[in-house]
Amino acid sequence: MKNYDIIVVGGSAAGIPAATTARKYYPNKSICIISDVEYIPIPCGIPYVFGTILDPMKNLIPVTKISEGNNLDLVISKVTEINRQKKYIRTDKGEDFGYDRLILATGSKPLVPPIKGIRLDNVFPVNKDAKYLQIIQEQLKKSKDIVVIGGGFIGAEMAEECKKNNKKLNVSIIEMQNHILKLVYDEEFCLLAEDALMKQDINLLFNEQVVEIKGNGKVSSVKLASGKEIKADLVILGIGAIPNTDLAVSAGLDLGPTKGIKVNKYQKTVDENIFACGDCTDKFSFFDGTPSQLKLASIATMEARIAGINLYKIRRYNRGVVGCFSTSLGNNAFAAAGITESVATLKCCDVVTGVAESVNRHPGGMPGAAKLRVKLIFEVASQKIIGGELYGAYSAGELINAISAFISKGMTAEEIVMFQAGTHPALTASPIAYQLVNAAEMALVKLDRA
Amino acid sequence: MKNYDIIVVGGSAAGIPAATTARKYYPNKSICIISDVEYIPIPCGIPYVFGTILDPMKNLIPVTKISEGNNLDLVISKVTEINRQKKYIRTDKGEDFGYDRLILATGSKPLVPPIKGIRLDNVFPVNKDAKYLQIIQEQLKKSKDIVVIGGGFIGAEMAEECKKNNKKLNVSIIEMQNHILKLVYDEEFCLLAEDALMKQDINLLFNEQVVEIKGNGKVSSVKLASGKEIKADLVILGIGAIPNTDLAVSAGLDLGPTKGIKVNKYQKTVDENIFACGDCTDKFSFFDGTPSQLKLASIATMEARIAGINLYKIRRYNRGVVGCFSTSLGNNAFAAAGITESVATLKCCDVVTGVAESVNRHPGGMPGAAKLRVKLIFEVASQKIIGGELYGAYSAGELINAISAFISKGMTAEEIVMFQAGTHPALTASPIAYQLVNAAEMALVKLDRA
Repeated sequence: MKNYDIIVVGGSAAGIPAATTARKYYPNKSICIISDVEYIPIPCGIPYVFGTILDPMKNLIPVTKISEGNNLDLVISKVTEINRQKKYIRTDKGEDFGYDRLILATGSKPLVPPIKGIRLDNVFPVNKDAKYLQIIQEQLKKSKDIVVIGGGFIGAEMAEECKKNNKKLNVSIIEMQNHILKLVYDEEFCLLAEDALMKQDINLLFNEQVVEIKGNGKVSSVKLASGKEIKADLVILGIGAIPNTDLAVSAGLDLGPTKGIKVNKYQKTVDENIFACGDCTDKFSFFDGTPSQLKLASIATMEARIAGINLYKIRRYNRGVVGCFSTSLGNNAFAAAGITESVATLKCCDVVTGVAESVNRHPGGMPGAAKLRVKLIFEVASQKIIGGELYGAYSAGELINAISAFISKGMTAEEIVMFQAGTHPALTASPIAYQLVNAAEMALVKLDRA
Repeated sequence: MKNYDIIVVGGSAAGIPAATTARKYYPNKSICIISDVEYIPIPCGIPYVFGTILDPMKNLIPVTKISEGNNLDLVISKVTEINRQKKYIRTDKGEDFGYDRLILATGSKPLVPPIKGIRLDNVFPVNKDAKYLQIIQEQLKKSKDIVVIGGGFIGAEMAEECKKNNKKLNVSIIEMQNHILKLVYDEEFCLLAEDALMKQDINLLFNEQVVEIKGNGKVSSVKLASGKEIKADLVILGIGAIPNTDLAVSAGLDLGPTKGIKVNKYQKTVDENIFACGDCTDKFSFFDGTPSQLKLASIATMEARIAGINLYKIRRYNRGVVGCFSTSLGNNAFAAAGITESVATLKCCDVVTGVAESVNRHPGGMPGAAKLRVKLIFEVASQKIIGGELYGAYSAGELINAISAFISKGMTAEEIVMFQAGTHPALTASPIAYQLVNAAEMALVKLDRA
């Protein structure tokens, strides 16, 4: 039996940074990554395989390169058993590997609801496996009517990319709520996102639930609770994911309230020698410590950095998850971090918002000018920022990360107004029109007048 | 005599936000902006007038529009006298305006060194006046050999824009130091900036000082201390600026150690009813409280927001200046905030740095992919971030502002590693390769191994 100091199960957004962090802080330990997928796609890149990258094999996490560069062994096998007493794992190939410390980064599985017809051919949950994505790609070429179930990020991006692949495709999104992306954005931003998709001739159906997927062997239509029936020769399920805990459960590890592997704030499971991180793991909110269903690559890598460093010495802790999202729809960025105004209001948290919009160049005649709108959400009592939403220019992709950091550091509106933002004609709005500062000032003005 | 509650002298990056901030917090006060320049250029946009915007009148601060939108009166006149006892100002047109509170935002003047020949025709300091810039533009059309004195931001940008205007121009930058942009960047970034300019056939002369500007009426050459003589039919001075304090001095207001108008941390001068902000005002460093020569639009607007809100009630204070700079050279962004590694080391401050580089898309095949390099500088003792330098993708323009905020909030390397950065294929690096977090982690690894 081959023995390692550290074994990481999983080679995606949690497993890789867990292993490389362990390597950085424990240079002399032997480390092995075991993945049951040979060609691991970049998770957020999956939709872009269909309309932009056009080849799942060009959207891979460079696991082999990273392993070689960090002196990590890489084994492609499915781990079927953990023997916690004797501290080894067994694979589907019958191999055993001993470990001193184990990190579970087994990720999530797409949610497949128990709808009649869900197992028909050409009904595709989005599995994170490049070979599997190639099958979807092949079927897409033969299809005319695409139905995407679920108007979250994956759903919206998949719809746009299918349309980009072939403008003649009929693409529909079926959403249970009255807006797409409603968990992440306030209504005014949802409307902008819907507008971006509708302009590309994507059909949006709101307040609709799928009751049956019809077909003979292969899907032919999707039936909705309203009675509508939508033609479909390819269906994509984008309704969420659940923690992949099969291995952990079979090893007797506890699960937490979100059905992820239970860990303490150091990412350690109930077993002294086993850590867990990423989508497979239970999570709690940064804001109030309550259980959180969020599953994001940003959260996975954060948790992985905790698990990897803490293996032999506890040095880092989880402060709870802050949702930080970004996407591009209709060539406009949509980004959000923290809590929306509507969610905050539902939770009976008194908030004040500030909104500012300006082009991201100055003067506006500079090349590449695009509008950028910033909405910031502050708790009235503490005047601390708890959320932000952005729309427009691609620089939103980095700006939302500034906002996420502000949230994690509890920055007040006054501190945001007073921080000194660099500005440049070719890169940002002018200092007078700088959206982040102006939005914070607008919130303060409202508080002042209240 | 017309009376105002509030008069702001100056209509640029300090005057405008001072007036609009006053309007926001004092909705019932009468407010007047007095500017001696009718067509006020966007200061940072000035270089881009010459190769990109191509018309100084398209690079104006929309002062009239802002005044109308904020219920501000606008007077184009030069203020020649302040009567502090009777609380009125007098203009060059002989008009008097009474004030209850006065804000001086008179800006800076380009530094014009006492070199022989400095007053020859076609030797241009960069004055912030669109009509004046039109004169430079006219002369540029008739010129062949351009010499830019000073390799700071204005110098580097002016050189690039002259070349963009006309590739056949011979453009040279004369720099006293051994690198351009040396006050702002560490050497490895200066080298990248120099490389960007040299690739555009801009001649760079280092360790050189101008001893004489030669010509007969109009400039014909520039003589250097080394003995070299450079042909020139147009010379641009980009060697810095000094506070414009003529009006303040004549009114008996005190100056501070940097020769700017002396103010307390509420931006109030020695006169209870007069505030000052922007380039005309004395400044101190955020890091150690020592006098600072920095003159930036970002600082001006920050100070203006303090002056504007504090006029009738002190509610905001100056925490000291953090330099935050960005530019574009050769279509790559260069940005920096805080203190460089070399300056920190000179000050005997023990620092540790972390560097990370990756493309700003994932996978790298996504459209618009460009490299982005991040260097972060931390104080060893506190592990707090004190500086950052960026090179590459234009998203650096917003990322540097995140870094500036981190500095102002005293974020530690560990806190930067643990903050949750949103990432998206079309907008940023992957979560595994996210440069800001990885650079902070690299610094922590160095500390761990030290």
